[in-house]
Amino acid sequence: MIRRLGIIGVGLIGGSLARALRQAGEVEEVIGCGRGGANLAKAVELGVIDRWTRDPAAAVRDADMVVVAVPLGALQATFAAIRGGLGADTVLTDVGSAKQCVLEAAREAFGELPGQLVPGHPIAGAERSGVEASSAGLFQGRKVILCPHERGRPQALAAVREMWQTVGAAVVEMDPVHHDEVLAATSHLPHVLAYVLVDVLGRMEERREIFAYAAGGFRDFTRIASSDPGMWHDILMANRDAILPALELFQTDLAEVTAALRRADSDTLCAVFNRAKELRDRFDPQQS
Amino acid sequence: MIRRLGIIGVGLIGGSLARALRQAGEVEEVIGCGRGGANLAKAVELGVIDRWTRDPAAAVRDADMVVVAVPLGALQATFAAIRGGLGADTVLTDVGSAKQCVLEAAREAFGELPGQLVPGHPIAGAERSGVEASSAGLFQGRKVILCPHERGRPQALAAVREMWQTVGAAVVEMDPVHHDEVLAATSHLPHVLAYVLVDVLGRMEERREIFAYAAGGFRDFTRIASSDPGMWHDILMANRDAILPALELFQTDLAEVTAALRRADSDTLCAVFNRAKELRDRFDPQQS
Repeated sequence: MIRRLGIIGVGLIGGSLARALRQAGEVEEVIGCGRGGANLAKAVELGVIDRWTRDPAAAVRDADMVVVAVPLGALQATFAAIRGGLGADTVLTDVGSAKQCVLEAAREAFGELPGQLVPGHPIAGAERSGVEASSAGLFQGRKVILCPHERGRPQALAAVREMWQTVGAAVVEMDPVHHDEVLAATSHLPHVLAYVLVDVLGRMEERREIFAYAAGGFRDFTRIASSDPGMWHDILMANRDAILPALELFQTDLAEVTAALRRADSDTLCAVFNRAKELRDRFDPQQS
Repeated sequence: MIRRLGIIGVGLIGGSLARALRQAGEVEEVIGCGRGGANLAKAVELGVIDRWTRDPAAAVRDADMVVVAVPLGALQATFAAIRGGLGADTVLTDVGSAKQCVLEAAREAFGELPGQLVPGHPIAGAERSGVEASSAGLFQGRKVILCPHERGRPQALAAVREMWQTVGAAVVEMDPVHHDEVLAATSHLPHVLAYVLVDVLGRMEERREIFAYAAGGFRDFTRIASSDPGMWHDILMANRDAILPALELFQTDLAEVTAALRRADSDTLCAVFNRAKELRDRFDPQQS
């Protein structure tokens, strides 16, 4: 049971976590903090938070758990802003889509990694964003990756683990370097490809017609291009070191497949497509 | 009402069309033709076709409508094989995902474009394939593009149009060059990207873990990589002239975005992502 929960950044993820903990009866009081007063008033109206402040230090004072759910680009400033209010026993976690940058931001803001910090990442994105899109069921059956660090307190790790399990998530621990590589491949790279594809198609002069004749496959493929551009800018910048090699691998392979198509090399095309289909079917057996 | 319908290639598309026409009471007899006796027997068992033959010329004899629904690579040979059995008044159409190649195949096989030929393309793919996956509702609300040619008979065009409208599709006419460009952009290019992405990820050594932590966005993005590799090989080879320029445009833009990420050029990244989100939301308003 969390007595007082501070949520810095009451959007889809922060809002959904508050809703889910409330629904489970596992939190007494939720304090929201953010830059937009209208959004925070909306969150109170929706019953997501009990009260709000624009002062991060005030939002975390006397909290037993603080969840920082701001875009990655605002993380270091947020850590610095809560520092004055953060009690020694308050557990601190985040929900960022890259994790090495969270450790760096914490080192910068706190001088050294605080024992109470447990970097975390719920794998439960959505193209929607904002507290209006939040829902208590968002984390049900989803994975949450925690990246505990060498100076972290076991009690803090246990508290964050329990919080996510309470809302239905499966918690796993992972090294932050590995986390960033895995997410660069399965999430960050596809987002870049989807954004670029839609942008390329938008520039083709037959644009209207192109979109008019797009089918379900295109809809699925480009859905993630509806994701929040600012949030994704921050993720890509924060995880550049892992994303750039993944992008290069992809570009090399795409160039090879393009060359194969140009020289009508059926064997190469079929080999790539067959391998991909087999892998994709294994990943998602109900599809095949 | 179609008295006798010949379906060459009883898979997802051919099977679904037969089912839909039957359900609408708009066909009396359906003759199936294909290479696999087991698949054809299955189609009879499922009530999709009435009887079958492995001889294409026999399958089209005395039919008033013939639908060729074979992979594009088999189209020319199929046209040549039905030539001997095709009556002068039989209407002939196909369902291929590229259309200039259909006209070329017909010219090769028949010597000149037959007046009874109406090239067509139902925009209703699926990752599933085979007659078992066929359903009467597949074309409901979908678009069917017809690419009538200069030697085509108006009555043949009207018959094919009526057939697709009967099964719930919206029929539009398009120039085959334009068709091939539009489909290259919205369908063929995304398939290449999805196949290559899954293949790249499969080669990364942490493969198991990579797929284990993939979320809904990845699932949607790569769903089309479960599509039939042989069928997609044929489509890409048949529509190379339109796909290669689209691939090049995409690669140029992806290289620019990669370079922007490398030099931490936030303005360029945000501009691309914002344009893409705006376009994608406009295409699919319920998502935003």
